[in-house]
Amino acid sequence: MIRFESDYLEGAVPEIIKRLNDTNLEQTSGYGTDPYCAAAREKIKAECKAPNADVHFLVGGTQANLTVIAASLRPHQGVLAAETAHIEVHETGAIEASGHKVLTLPTENGKIKAADIEEYVLRHRADESFEHTVQPAMVYISQPTETGTVYSLPELEAISRVCRGLGLILFADGARLACALACEGTPTLPDLARLCDVFYIGGTKHGALFGEAVVITNNAIKRDFRYIIKQRGGMFAKGRLLGLQFDALFTDGLYYKIGSREAELAARLREAFAAKGIAFKYPSPTNQLFPILSKKQMGTLSEKYSFSVQEHLPNGGAVVRFCTSWATTTEAVDELTADIEKL
Amino acid sequence: MIRFESDYLEGAVPEIIKRLNDTNLEQTSGYGTDPYCAAAREKIKAECKAPNADVHFLVGGTQANLTVIAASLRPHQGVLAAETAHIEVHETGAIEASGHKVLTLPTENGKIKAADIEEYVLRHRADESFEHTVQPAMVYISQPTETGTVYSLPELEAISRVCRGLGLILFADGARLACALACEGTPTLPDLARLCDVFYIGGTKHGALFGEAVVITNNAIKRDFRYIIKQRGGMFAKGRLLGLQFDALFTDGLYYKIGSREAELAARLREAFAAKGIAFKYPSPTNQLFPILSKKQMGTLSEKYSFSVQEHLPNGGAVVRFCTSWATTTEAVDELTADIEKL
Amino acid sequence: MIRFESDYLEGAVPEIIKRLNDTNLEQTSGYGTDPYCAAAREKIKAECKAPNADVHFLVGGTQANLTVIAASLRPHQGVLAAETAHIEVHETGAIEASGHKVLTLPTENGKIKAADIEEYVLRHRADESFEHTVQPAMVYISQPTETGTVYSLPELEAISRVCRGLGLILFADGARLACALACEGTPTLPDLARLCDVFYIGGTKHGALFGEAVVITNNAIKRDFRYIIKQRGGMFAKGRLLGLQFDALFTDGLYYKIGSREAELAARLREAFAAKGIAFKYPSPTNQLFPILSKKQMGTLSEKYSFSVQEHLPNGGAVVRFCTSWATTTEAVDELTADIEKL
Amino acid sequence: MIRFESDYLEGAVPEIIKRLNDTNLEQTSGYGTDPYCAAAREKIKAECKAPNADVHFLVGGTQANLTVIAASLRPHQGVLAAETAHIEVHETGAIEASGHKVLTLPTENGKIKAADIEEYVLRHRADESFEHTVQPAMVYISQPTETGTVYSLPELEAISRVCRGLGLILFADGARLACALACEGTPTLPDLARLCDVFYIGGTKHGALFGEAVVITNNAIKRDFRYIIKQRGGMFAKGRLLGLQFDALFTDGLYYKIGSREAELAARLREAFAAKGIAFKYPSPTNQLFPILSKKQMGTLSEKYSFSVQEHLPNGGAVVRFCTSWATTTEAVDELTADIEKL
Repeated sequence: MIRFESDYLEGAVPEIIKRLNDTNLEQTSGYGTDPYCAAAREKIKAECKAPNADVHFLVGGTQANLTVIAASLRPHQGVLAAETAHIEVHETGAIEASGHKVLTLPTENGKIKAADIEEYVLRHRADESFEHTVQPAMVYISQPTETGTVYSLPELEAISRVCRGLGLILFADGARLACALACEGTPTLPDLARLCDVFYIGGTKHGALFGEAVVITNNAIKRDFRYIIKQRGGMFAKGRLLGLQFDALFTDGLYYKIGSREAELAARLREAFAAKGIAFKYPSPTNQLFPILSKKQMGTLSEKYSFSVQEHLPNGGAVVRFCTSWATTTEAVDELTADIEKL
Repeated sequence: MIRFESDYLEGAVPEIIKRLNDTNLEQTSGYGTDPYCAAAREKIKAECKAPNADVHFLVGGTQANLTVIAASLRPHQGVLAAETAHIEVHETGAIEASGHKVLTLPTENGKIKAADIEEYVLRHRADESFEHTVQPAMVYISQPTETGTVYSLPELEAISRVCRGLGLILFADGARLACALACEGTPTLPDLARLCDVFYIGGTKHGALFGEAVVITNNAIKRDFRYIIKQRGGMFAKGRLLGLQFDALFTDGLYYKIGSREAELAARLREAFAAKGIAFKYPSPTNQLFPILSKKQMGTLSEKYSFSVQEHLPNGGAVVRFCTSWATTTEAVDELTADIEKL
Repeated sequence: MIRFESDYLEGAVPEIIKRLNDTNLEQTSGYGTDPYCAAAREKIKAECKAPNADVHFLVGGTQANLTVIAASLRPHQGVLAAETAHIEVHETGAIEASGHKVLTLPTENGKIKAADIEEYVLRHRADESFEHTVQPAMVYISQPTETGTVYSLPELEAISRVCRGLGLILFADGARLACALACEGTPTLPDLARLCDVFYIGGTKHGALFGEAVVITNNAIKRDFRYIIKQRGGMFAKGRLLGLQFDALFTDGLYYKIGSREAELAARLREAFAAKGIAFKYPSPTNQLFPILSKKQMGTLSEKYSFSVQEHLPNGGAVVRFCTSWATTTEAVDELTADIEKL
Repeated sequence: MIRFESDYLEGAVPEIIKRLNDTNLEQTSGYGTDPYCAAAREKIKAECKAPNADVHFLVGGTQANLTVIAASLRPHQGVLAAETAHIEVHETGAIEASGHKVLTLPTENGKIKAADIEEYVLRHRADESFEHTVQPAMVYISQPTETGTVYSLPELEAISRVCRGLGLILFADGARLACALACEGTPTLPDLARLCDVFYIGGTKHGALFGEAVVITNNAIKRDFRYIIKQRGGMFAKGRLLGLQFDALFTDGLYYKIGSREAELAARLREAFAAKGIAFKYPSPTNQLFPILSKKQMGTLSEKYSFSVQEHLPNGGAVVRFCTSWATTTEAVDELTADIEKL
């Protein structure tokens, strides 16, 4: 079985494994106060051209989302997000468990629009009983989105402009950010640091064993952020494990290479599906593909490959997901491509 | 100005005011342990034909909703409700502030359907990543709904059957229950006690100064409920004020009379609007009417009457709300009816 | 049985009952937006010499405490309070339920000391692992305290000075404030407004049916406070009931008169106990007395009077509580005084 | 500088590092559903002689504590713990942030007594206003405690008996459990599984990179536990990293060997301090030692060794902490022992 169902099936890139081996017996202080975390922070700040940013390392995406949101909002405030957003649909109510409502905006492809944000907030403010409704105070986007699509630089600029005009915090979940960075016309790390109040750079799905690097440029969110990390269970004792992973990812452009490679391998699969006339549920240029397969196609492919089923269709077919990861081999993609051609 | 914009514009029915005056100097123990609360509990249990029910008196609707839900759910569980439900749209995220997600179901008229509940829950249970999503564990309905419509007895029976089959708690918000009881074919108090796990009988909008009587038939929710009331700020020191109000409302059928009168006066207004060809946004048989007025009609009526605007329409008109209350006079309705005719 | 066990045994002072009767049929808008609330706010602001304060009316003390604290703190922040504080011992964890830890300071008589606050905060800040502990950010005091004692003006000034120096919010719970105002050398309303960031003026235990008036002078807490009230279930639909009660209490000095009378009647009881050589657990100059009775004394008094037992003693005696209220009669005090003399 | 200030200064034992290297390119499913987690679960259940237990792997101790407590309690319930408990003093209010109060019991050495638990609960139940106070529903102990002491088997049996008699959940935090298992007369893993409702086996401080294995024997807590893990941010994507670490720790008795070695090295240091007449703040038989050093002794030792200061003393000395870990070398202990002798 060659597995394509997710991008967290394997361990870490060799550069990270080597670091773990090399440093294993070193003694460093805990909780992210070690030299590896310090070095990784500096590299990320330099890469973001954001010398005044704060950088924190957390273990996973849900943890990053709930910690950032808890640190940012007062109790009566909510966070605007696409109705497909990870925080809305796949975190078991983690945001609500920290007391905040996710306020959803409609979406066709996982992205939300600046105009929809503006309309929502203005309608709230014009409402006579505004105090009886949750105050929208933050916007959450994912780059790339949960459906694999990406915001272009102009789209992010428009959202940022609306957020600043209305006094909203802009937060970007970058669990798969390397893939978005590999797309043309998308915001770079300096763009994200300039346009968002806080965002994170995902490691778990791009070659790390685990870890997300949260970059905060808004001073109000920076304040006391480590208290909130600790309170939510995210203060990692042997914190250097996070630091050395991100230090490796941001040495010699490794993070970008991983993203590019994941995207290129996915592009080959995308072309193979398209060449067979197989349509996609979402127009994803990143490492997650959502082809719509017939029952027969699913049956054939599932003999050799694993993939995940997203949505069963009345005709017996389904929207499925194929992912590439840092560890996906050229050979695996060659083989799958050939098998798609034979469908 | 004759006011029709809400049903909490005035004080209390004379029977309640008299009780307040008569008992003012009596000494009773606090926090709902007094004889008036005890008497009111007995009357409500008798009226519900539910001798084993627990009855608690709370000050308001949002408080009742958040207390009942906090007492009923574990942290990962959410409550299914119409997208128009009060807990979803008009309680400033009170449910999320207690840690729980409101899971919305589509609706056309404020009501939800047994089949939609079933489908939602079965889809959750069949989902591979069900543990990454909020577990639906409770169903919240309003009787009447926020749009003035009512569940018929067969509709409530169907919802109750689905809930029991799936192990869901059924909770009915009866902030305006007297009006629903006044409609033909709707569940009676014994029906509600038999079909729901918990519901409440609204006083605030039916002649009391304030107060909602929560009736609990499910033993798991009964347990330690008073602790939760206290924790959420709802343990009223001079608790007898709640008891004597409900004692009055459930003496000589007063509660039913209030509901019937409110509904009858509303019916006269409904007919007057209809006679002029004015349509309604929702088919409400209760004390809230939602006519769709033109700009001109609004202008004319607003010279003498107050009403609330629910939704501005592109043509300058609006969906508005007229309410009747226990204190609405026949004269006021006569006058408004006459003025509607002249529109 | 003549009851002395609490100060919420009766209804409201005649001035309030009259207002309720007189205004019952008036129509006013809801949720505290009516003219009675507006008038009461102005009177309270004038009485506090705090024209820029915000004043909100809540139904009860626990509700006021949890709403103010939720509005004031970020998630990692806690509130310093005496180990005997109401929020620590008698609110079923309401503060923790809103996510915040109560950080206790030792006390002998219910009061906390400026020096202890300072020491606690400086120790926190000097602690290497300060981020692993709750950040003290607010100080909660009760005036009078739960044990009936009062802060003198110099004591409150010292606490306020420490709080401002350290950037802490100072919050005073005034559930029985009228009695403290009646004592010599205690802070006046203008003192409280000047020295605290937020405090409340208790109505429930001083002649109202219910209600606490929250006075906010700190702009950060003012912001969006009504959202938080609504979210926590404290937005009272027929809000004018709160307004007209406080309007009555602050007309012709009624609030002060109630406090003075309660304190005077309590003083007579205090002297009677003292004359018999009966000691007190706490040196309370206000309307709650905590005499230490022998088993025999308890037995004798309980034949005619109700009082509450605070703490059973090994010798069979107990610390008990006698309270006076606005409704306590001179005759009742005469009788009890005479019976104490006969002990 | 030879470091003794904590037991999380280094990476992982060679057995774990080897596993990470060997399995790095394998493809496994995520979120703890992989074969390594399954194998580790079976080994732990066998070691605990608890075939019906549920075993879950979490990343850290605070996360384990807050997840277990959130899964176990209703909103009005609190957890009894020593006033020195980790959840009370060193988790930034994580338990309160999930809505629950920590109810403290006095302690001299970090342990709590069965009799104190019983007295607390009976006093709560006998209290007239019990509903105004937090309901004690769980007991949290640490084995070993935060001060390095251990519960003997009879002590744990007594606590368990009281908990079962009173209907309380017993939860043991075993962040440093290996060291307690190495002590004579302490509960074994089967004892813990038999006597507790839930406990965890700490990996982070005993040779793992990270990880705690939560063992649940109480069916009510088992139910839906994975939802709560996900909601609190603890659902680890590459879950096998946790599984293979615990699989290694429970192969060939490695976990016990680590604990024994840590304890033995600590015993040598303990003897060295004692031989010099240096007293200890707490009588710890485990890997954390708390000697009371004079200012001069601290100065001398700090030239070559790092240790942490727990409490400054008026005479300029301090209570300090020395820890041994799986990676502490015999040579380091030899050297420190010799230097202690020269003090």
